[in-house]
Amino acid sequence: MTDRARRLILAERPTAMVDESTVRMEEGDVPEPGEGEALARVRYLSIDPTIRTWMDDAPGYLPPIGIGEVVRGGGVAEVLTSNCKLYEPGDLLFGLTGWQDYVIADGGQRAMQKLPPGVSPTAALGVLGLNGTTAYFGLLDVGALKEGDVVVVSGAAGATGSAAGQIAKIKGAAKVVGIAGGPEKCAWIVDELGFDAAIDYKSEDVSARLRELCPDGIDLYFDNVGGEILNACLANLAMRGRIVLCGAIASYNDRERSFGPTNYPALIIRRGRMEGFIVLDYFDRLAGAQAELAGWLGEGRLKSTEHIVDGLEHAPEALNLLFTGGNTGKVLVRV
Amino acid sequence: MTDRARRLILAERPTAMVDESTVRMEEGDVPEPGEGEALARVRYLSIDPTIRTWMDDAPGYLPPIGIGEVVRGGGVAEVLTSNCKLYEPGDLLFGLTGWQDYVIADGGQRAMQKLPPGVSPTAALGVLGLNGTTAYFGLLDVGALKEGDVVVVSGAAGATGSAAGQIAKIKGAAKVVGIAGGPEKCAWIVDELGFDAAIDYKSEDVSARLRELCPDGIDLYFDNVGGEILNACLANLAMRGRIVLCGAIASYNDRERSFGPTNYPALIIRRGRMEGFIVLDYFDRLAGAQAELAGWLGEGRLKSTEHIVDGLEHAPEALNLLFTGGNTGKVLVRV
Repeated sequence: MTDRARRLILAERPTAMVDESTVRMEEGDVPEPGEGEALARVRYLSIDPTIRTWMDDAPGYLPPIGIGEVVRGGGVAEVLTSNCKLYEPGDLLFGLTGWQDYVIADGGQRAMQKLPPGVSPTAALGVLGLNGTTAYFGLLDVGALKEGDVVVVSGAAGATGSAAGQIAKIKGAAKVVGIAGGPEKCAWIVDELGFDAAIDYKSEDVSARLRELCPDGIDLYFDNVGGEILNACLANLAMRGRIVLCGAIASYNDRERSFGPTNYPALIIRRGRMEGFIVLDYFDRLAGAQAELAGWLGEGRLKSTEHIVDGLEHAPEALNLLFTGGNTGKVLVRV
Repeated sequence: MTDRARRLILAERPTAMVDESTVRMEEGDVPEPGEGEALARVRYLSIDPTIRTWMDDAPGYLPPIGIGEVVRGGGVAEVLTSNCKLYEPGDLLFGLTGWQDYVIADGGQRAMQKLPPGVSPTAALGVLGLNGTTAYFGLLDVGALKEGDVVVVSGAAGATGSAAGQIAKIKGAAKVVGIAGGPEKCAWIVDELGFDAAIDYKSEDVSARLRELCPDGIDLYFDNVGGEILNACLANLAMRGRIVLCGAIASYNDRERSFGPTNYPALIIRRGRMEGFIVLDYFDRLAGAQAELAGWLGEGRLKSTEHIVDGLEHAPEALNLLFTGGNTGKVLVRV
């Protein structure tokens, strides 16, 4: 433990990937918990594409991170000292820790939650956390997955995509095709996770391969990336196909040259639907989803992997991995 | 009546608006009805944007019109002679007559239907026909219109748009804003049809006006046009806003420079939905919708107007009116 407290603050708004001029390290004293508060040491940070969107001065589902503020992000922290009856020293908490060494937990509305028994910090941030539940509600609620559906998932080797593909198989999809970058990721999702097929968008013609693998069209496309892959899926949509918009990482670092899916009229011809969602809306049903996910995890039917980056100072590079495709599975920073 | 039978055939596929080189008049003998068939004289043609899409060699909800074939289109025809027990001379039939003087009705699967009693030919092709029912199912089924919704309709002075706006008011929308081109159309939809407000896309900043008129966002956008107006509505979507994709006339004559709505990620942030449909899917419920529409029409709560073009030979120009905005209300050709 350091005696000084480090925090990564948003110094200026990035126009592309984050770097030292946009996210800067500051040091200060370790904060003192007041009455009703606890001091916790951040152990892991959850690195998610959405963090990049919060850095833009654009309307979103949460306000932008202010200039000079600690970068917002989820994580797991361990309670050191507590003046709050909710928390005891040694408790592991998860919630919006921010990119810093220490966080004050106050039991308020945006309280840090205690980790449920038997759940590891990394699972809490990934497959049983926002990634797993995002995949779960996106597929089952928004996408209304039915048995026998042909499902396509992009960002398929990422934390959310890998969970989405496996959940689709568990819930009876006839075929699950994953789109990922590079032969290793493609092999992993097929050989380890049980996807039926993979498309390497870096070396293959995505639209042609989709036509080949899904000759009757795509019933459900779980979209993590947007861009030309979304366009290719629109072109191959089945009658009454559903597109679940989870994210659009293809454009997060390129606000200037924004992308619009030119094939959107396929939604008319095929009577299709394209719908967005944010998992936070399912807050009151998270526990049920987590219980089901934990069951599959215990049975070995749902697998996950982590890409761990060591050191708070490397959080910006860890974030960039999501956009360069440098990760397989959940990206975490061990602080 | 001419002794010769004229027919407009698709001579080559248009790349922009239709003209003499793409749609050509041919003359031949008046067809002879065979056993079980009737000969009918076409009286009115329904001029609809979708006809333009059938001229492209692109996948659609119906096969493209073949080169050398009569242009496909709806219309009303009067039976002259009949060898079919379903039809008698003098009967008015509606269905896919095609762009020609005479049509053979055979009572088969794509039969011409008799006009219901009390329904005029022009109403059967417009407000009680595909336009009215498209507006009805698009708003109520696909768009799931709720009382108190803020509704925006584009192509609002057209046959479908004008019906959509009025039906939204009848069904309890809190506010209905129409987008149309030019001051006359804007005045007509507000003063005659009871829209709450109009935006003239030819002279106003659509997005700025939408922000002003719908400060809490758009709950339901009925899209007839696509293009930048769709993009402006995406930017002004309310939480859980729905976009009903009915048509995309902004792009029907410009396949090369196709448009993609760059603001589609608003669907994620606002948890919105964009869904396409074709009214033909509601075939088994058309009669109920027509009855309700006819009731409103009788009560004076639903109004329509027609833009009639005289002469089969002017059907191509009539079609082009839909894309130049030269019409108010339903475009019909009186053959």
